Amino acid sequence: MREELYRDAQTIIGEAIAAVSPDEAVRRALEGKRFAGKSRLVAVGKAAWQMARAALECLEEPTAGGIVLTKYGHVKGPLPGIRCLEAGHPVPDENSYRGTREVLRFTENLTEEDTVLFLLSGGGSALFEQPLIPARETEEITRQLLACGADITEMNTVRKRLSGVKGGRFAAHCAPARVEAVVLSDILGDPLDMIAGGPVTPDTGTFARAREIIQTYGIALSAEGWEALAREAPGPVTNVHTQIIGSVGQLCQAARESCARLGYETIFLTDRLACEAREAGRFLASVAASHAGCGRKLAFVAGGETLVHLTGKGLGGRNQELALAAVQSLEGLDAAVFSVGSDGTDGPTDAAGGYVDGDTAAVLRERNIRPAQALADNDSYHALQAAGGLLVTGPTGTNVNDLTVVLVG
Amino acid sequence: MREELYRDAQTIIGEAIAAVSPDEAVRRALEGKRFAGKSRLVAVGKAAWQMARAALECLEEPTAGGIVLTKYGHVKGPLPGIRCLEAGHPVPDENSYRGTREVLRFTENLTEEDTVLFLLSGGGSALFEQPLIPARETEEITRQLLACGADITEMNTVRKRLSGVKGGRFAAHCAPARVEAVVLSDILGDPLDMIAGGPVTPDTGTFARAREIIQTYGIALSAEGWEALAREAPGPVTNVHTQIIGSVGQLCQAARESCARLGYETIFLTDRLACEAREAGRFLASVAASHAGCGRKLAFVAGGETLVHLTGKGLGGRNQELALAAVQSLEGLDAAVFSVGSDGTDGPTDAAGGYVDGDTAAVLRERNIRPAQALADNDSYHALQAAGGLLVTGPTGTNVNDLTVVLVG
Repeated sequence: MREELYRDAQTIIGEAIAAVSPDEAVRRALEGKRFAGKSRLVAVGKAAWQMARAALECLEEPTAGGIVLTKYGHVKGPLPGIRCLEAGHPVPDENSYRGTREVLRFTENLTEEDTVLFLLSGGGSALFEQPLIPARETEEITRQLLACGADITEMNTVRKRLSGVKGGRFAAHCAPARVEAVVLSDILGDPLDMIAGGPVTPDTGTFARAREIIQTYGIALSAEGWEALAREAPGPVTNVHTQIIGSVGQLCQAARESCARLGYETIFLTDRLACEAREAGRFLASVAASHAGCGRKLAFVAGGETLVHLTGKGLGGRNQELALAAVQSLEGLDAAVFSVGSDGTDGPTDAAGGYVDGDTAAVLRERNIRPAQALADNDSYHALQAAGGLLVTGPTGTNVNDLTVVLVG
Repeated sequence: MREELYRDAQTIIGEAIAAVSPDEAVRRALEGKRFAGKSRLVAVGKAAWQMARAALECLEEPTAGGIVLTKYGHVKGPLPGIRCLEAGHPVPDENSYRGTREVLRFTENLTEEDTVLFLLSGGGSALFEQPLIPARETEEITRQLLACGADITEMNTVRKRLSGVKGGRFAAHCAPARVEAVVLSDILGDPLDMIAGGPVTPDTGTFARAREIIQTYGIALSAEGWEALAREAPGPVTNVHTQIIGSVGQLCQAARESCARLGYETIFLTDRLACEAREAGRFLASVAASHAGCGRKLAFVAGGETLVHLTGKGLGGRNQELALAAVQSLEGLDAAVFSVGSDGTDGPTDAAGGYVDGDTAAVLRERNIRPAQALADNDSYHALQAAGGLLVTGPTGTNVNDLTVVLVG
């Protein structure tokens, strides 16, 4: 292990993830803000409890109470003046609909003097839902879309049209009150209307596109379902101010700042990485190899979410595969490649990601582990474990995709 | 098509390839040079004739004659004072051995006052050869190594040990004369001992490694072959001065200069790209998408040689696949991705590579062409053809891998 590079990697990971923790990010978004009248706090999503707690800590004026609507097991204790509700995720259940009705009651008949502080995080799609068709059918459609491999964008395009709160409908419900939205993003490129189905963002999807998805995947839909799908969403949303926090863009930005503090000349590559994990690893290793020994300390920063195609039966995750695929081209170089999931988990493992540097290949050879074989088996975990290259953070309480960095020493 | 980006792409490609043409590169290497005594010119490889012609044009003093040893059909006319010989490639034949013997005779019994101007290019491995074992066995080993998919590094590790001119042995033969070597590189990372088997470079391979390769691929070898394989190569080579010209590094460097002249802030990524072509395209598209609209003109420059795994029966090449894989993420952006083979050919097509920009996706949709389907069929050629995205240069007379560039307008 190259001690200095490894230490720097740990620092960068720690600082970048801290910057996108719900607490820290909410604090930065709300610090010193004042709202017209008393604000009503509505927090929805997997990070809802944490975001609400952070908001209560930094708001200077008392609120008119609030509701947290989160996933089972995600309420960590009572919050003053806040009702904390738990519900089903990723498939919505009766408690999702009941919780959503409570939120709608809590925010009805508001005036221009009122403010709704709306804290939204990943998982909101399922948790915050008022179906326009029988709940059973919505659940069935969601289950079918999940099963046939539809991506989150396709899923939301359909689901928001079947919903009484998505596609800007919740904002319309709160009007004429102001909605101050603080959104913790977990979707690449931050398309606001896609995060949790965009309860306070106009729907950019169309009936034509939703129909195409239903037909492509052969999803069964009732006449009532088709009618809801065809219904137009509310027009422009004018009573909402939105701040996106803790996005993968902020994760990258924090990593860049951290690299710069450590003395690296920093090159930002992308916050939308979306290719095959091992090929991204090979690409980045070739970047490292072309710059190693150039006499400058360089950091190349990327964020996003790579893909893994399972062909073997080993243990691993996309970040670990990315790192392991870089190992051979790095051999002997004063350079490192590491990749880590901001939520602290990578695949079905206890590691958040993987780290390799110029010394890793030799260690693997000593242990009789072939990187190519480990990749063919999708067994990056055990290879990295043997080389001391697992990155373990534990659950971080946030989820804004992955951070991938090349360091040249 | 975004006119300005497309025009810039053409300029960058033209200037970068011109900079690594054998003529231009030899001219830059030899301009104003004077050698002790009369120099003997020995040019070996696929670009030998072109390199020799350029050398004759720019040397200020007359030579003591010379020999060109190149592939069949590659002698384009007589050169004053030079004997032009043609021989077999990629498998050496009787003319390779005869030509090599002529070169050895032409360069024997030299003194410290003499200079051998040695112009080396790709293909030299097969063309310049004096087997230490019966020619038939060398040919058979080469054929077997090619057939079982050994890479060029493995091939040379074995072959140079079976050769009387490789692994520095030609330099030893010329001693005590000075050898001025000008090498046109076509191997990633420019390992000099690998280019054409390194006739004037000490062998960094070992018997152990050569044996491993023979055994891994199950190559048949005679007792004589094993004996030659085990023989140690000459030690340090002290009578050689080498200039590498026209490498992929120079291709990238020229592209960077061209981008800078066109007003782009230029970021050099790598000159050792070696991952799957379509994944490199996706990676670079995500880089483009993250920077498009940032208000700066940016160019990301990469070189190397990507891979394609054939699963379909369409027409295309690695550069075309790379470009096509970028098309969807670029849609609507003021950005382009292009990739081109410096030899002017890409796969079994008449194109050198492919170009896509923010307008290409819409054109493909109009023509009812799905990029994902075209990639699955390995049919990038027809997709790009329909969108006007084929880059055609014709044969360039050089071969230093590929150039890949992201432009953000």
